[in-house]
Amino acid sequence: MARIAYLGPEGTFTEAALLRMADAGMIPQRGTDAVEPLPTESTPAALDAVRGGEVDYACVPIENSIDGSVMPTLDSLAMGSPLQVFAEITLDVAFSIVVKPGRSADEVRTLAAFPVAAAQVRRWVAAHLPGVELRPANSNADAAQQVADGVVDAAVSSPLAAAYRGLATLADGVVDEANARTRFVLAGPPGPPPARTGADRTSVILRIDNAPGALVAALSEVGIRDIDLTRIESRPTRTELGTYVFFLDWVGHIDDDAIAEALKALYRRCADVRYLGSWPTGVAAGVPPPQLDEASRWLAQLREPRR
Amino acid sequence: MARIAYLGPEGTFTEAALLRMADAGMIPQRGTDAVEPLPTESTPAALDAVRGGEVDYACVPIENSIDGSVMPTLDSLAMGSPLQVFAEITLDVAFSIVVKPGRSADEVRTLAAFPVAAAQVRRWVAAHLPGVELRPANSNADAAQQVADGVVDAAVSSPLAAAYRGLATLADGVVDEANARTRFVLAGPPGPPPARTGADRTSVILRIDNAPGALVAALSEVGIRDIDLTRIESRPTRTELGTYVFFLDWVGHIDDDAIAEALKALYRRCADVRYLGSWPTGVAAGVPPPQLDEASRWLAQLREPRR
Repeated sequence: MARIAYLGPEGTFTEAALLRMADAGMIPQRGTDAVEPLPTESTPAALDAVRGGEVDYACVPIENSIDGSVMPTLDSLAMGSPLQVFAEITLDVAFSIVVKPGRSADEVRTLAAFPVAAAQVRRWVAAHLPGVELRPANSNADAAQQVADGVVDAAVSSPLAAAYRGLATLADGVVDEANARTRFVLAGPPGPPPARTGADRTSVILRIDNAPGALVAALSEVGIRDIDLTRIESRPTRTELGTYVFFLDWVGHIDDDAIAEALKALYRRCADVRYLGSWPTGVAAGVPPPQLDEASRWLAQLREPRR
Repeated sequence: MARIAYLGPEGTFTEAALLRMADAGMIPQRGTDAVEPLPTESTPAALDAVRGGEVDYACVPIENSIDGSVMPTLDSLAMGSPLQVFAEITLDVAFSIVVKPGRSADEVRTLAAFPVAAAQVRRWVAAHLPGVELRPANSNADAAQQVADGVVDAAVSSPLAAAYRGLATLADGVVDEANARTRFVLAGPPGPPPARTGADRTSVILRIDNAPGALVAALSEVGIRDIDLTRIESRPTRTELGTYVFFLDWVGHIDDDAIAEALKALYRRCADVRYLGSWPTGVAAGVPPPQLDEASRWLAQLREPRR
C-alpha cells in the first residue's frame, strides 16, 4: 500500500493523474498494488506530507501549457528539504459539463464553475449554453456537488468529481484552448532513480550568485556535452538578494555518461546543486501520453482497497 | 487622453496599477493628462486591443512573486504582432476585507471571495474570522458587489473594487504570504523607448532552434559583455516542434553600449529576436516601488475625465 498525497479536494485533475499513474504501474510499490490517495489543500502541503513521513509520495502539477510552471510546486522542491521525482504523466486539460442523470441541455438554466475553469470554457459555454446563468464554485468538486445537491442545473467539472457523485455527462473534452495540457510528477524521499529507459528526463535545480556570466559558465557544462536542454527557468531566491535559482530539465538519465559528467562539473561550479531525479517520459519511445478519460473505470478498480 | 486597456473587470489590481502609473506620470502622454481605462476579459485581449488600434496602451500583469510569470501575457508578447513595453510598476498583493459602512467584524457570518484570493488569505481568515462561511465569487469585484447587494456580510476584495462601491474596510493589507508582489507593464505600439535613467530594464525574446549549445552560444553574447541577466525563462513554441522561445530580462538600456552590442550579436545568431523595450525600473535609483493603498484618492482624481 502506497499512501500518496495530492492536490485536493477529491476529484481534482491531480487525483485523476495519480490514479492514472497507479493504473499504468508507474508508482514504485511498497508491498501491494493498492494506493491510498490523501487530498491536501495545496501542492506544498502535499510535498511536506512526504517530508514529514505521513505519506510515501506526493502527486503534484508541475507545468501547464497555458500558465507555465506551477511555481508553488517548484518553490517547494527548491527550498524545502530534498525530494526526488520518480515519474511523470501529462494529461489534457478538458472539462466535463455534468448534470443529474436524465437531465438534458435544454433544461440547464444555471451552471456552476470554479472561476479558473469558467475562464477556460467561456467560448464553449457561449456557443452551446447561451444565456445560462453562471454561478461561482469553490473548486471543480464543489461545482459538481452543487449539481448533486440540486442547487444548480449543471456544472463545469472534472470527470472524476462527476463520477464520485454519480452525475451524468452532457459533454466532455470541453475546453476553449486546444492542446491545453498539464504535467504532473510523483515526488518521494530521495532514493535510487527508476532504471534508464532511453526516453528519460533529468531535472536539476541550481543556485547561482548573480555574477554576470555565472549562468553562462554553468550552462556551458551542459552545452559542451551535447545535452538537450528542454526547460530553463530563473527564479529570484526570496532570502538572498542577487541570488537566483535555476530550474533545468535535460533529455537523458543520470546513468548516461554525459549527464553524469555535467552534474559533477556543476557540483564544482555552483553554490548549490540539487538533483531532482531522472525518470522515464515515454515520449521518445513513441508511447503517446495517456489521455484523461474513463476516470470512473480506474476509480472503481483503484479505490476499492481503501474501503 | 490616453485610452488604456487593462485586465478587468473594474476594480482589479491591474486597474489599480494602471491608475498608479498615471498618477506617477509614467504613461507617455498624447495630448492631456487624462486616461480612459477600458476593462478587457483577459491579458491577451488587452494587448490585442492595442494591436487593433482600439486603445493606445495596455496595462497587464507580467510576473507574480508567488506564481511566477503570467504566461498568457508573455505568450501574447512573443507570438502576436510586435508590441513594446514603456513602463512597469510593482504592487504588493494585499487584499481588503470589506463590509457595508457601519458593520463590525462581530457581525460577519458570511464572506465572499474569488477562490484564488480565498487561497491567499486562508490563514488570516481562520485566525481573524473563525467560523465564517466562505461563499465563492466570480472575481474580486463580484465579491465586493455581493456585499453591496446585501447577499453576504463581507468580502475579500481589492481596495479599488471596494472604493467603487462605497464599502468600508474592516482590514487591509491582508495576505498570508509576506512579500507577495505583482509586476505590471504598460505595452504599446513599437516606438522610441523612454530615455535612459541609469536604472532600466531591457527585455528581449529569442526564438532558438533546440540544437544543443545554441542557447549557451546566445547567452555568451550577454555574459561576455558583463550584462546582468535578471530573468530567463524558456517556453516551447506550440507551432514548431523542438523550437523554444526564451524570455530574457537584462539590467540596462538599449542606449548602453553593452546592451546595444549584445542585441546586434543576437540578431546575427538567432532565428528570431524580438526587442520588447527598455524602460525605467526605478530600483537602482533607490526609489522604493509604489505601494497599493489609497486607491480611492487617485480614483476620484483620475477617472473624472471619463464622465
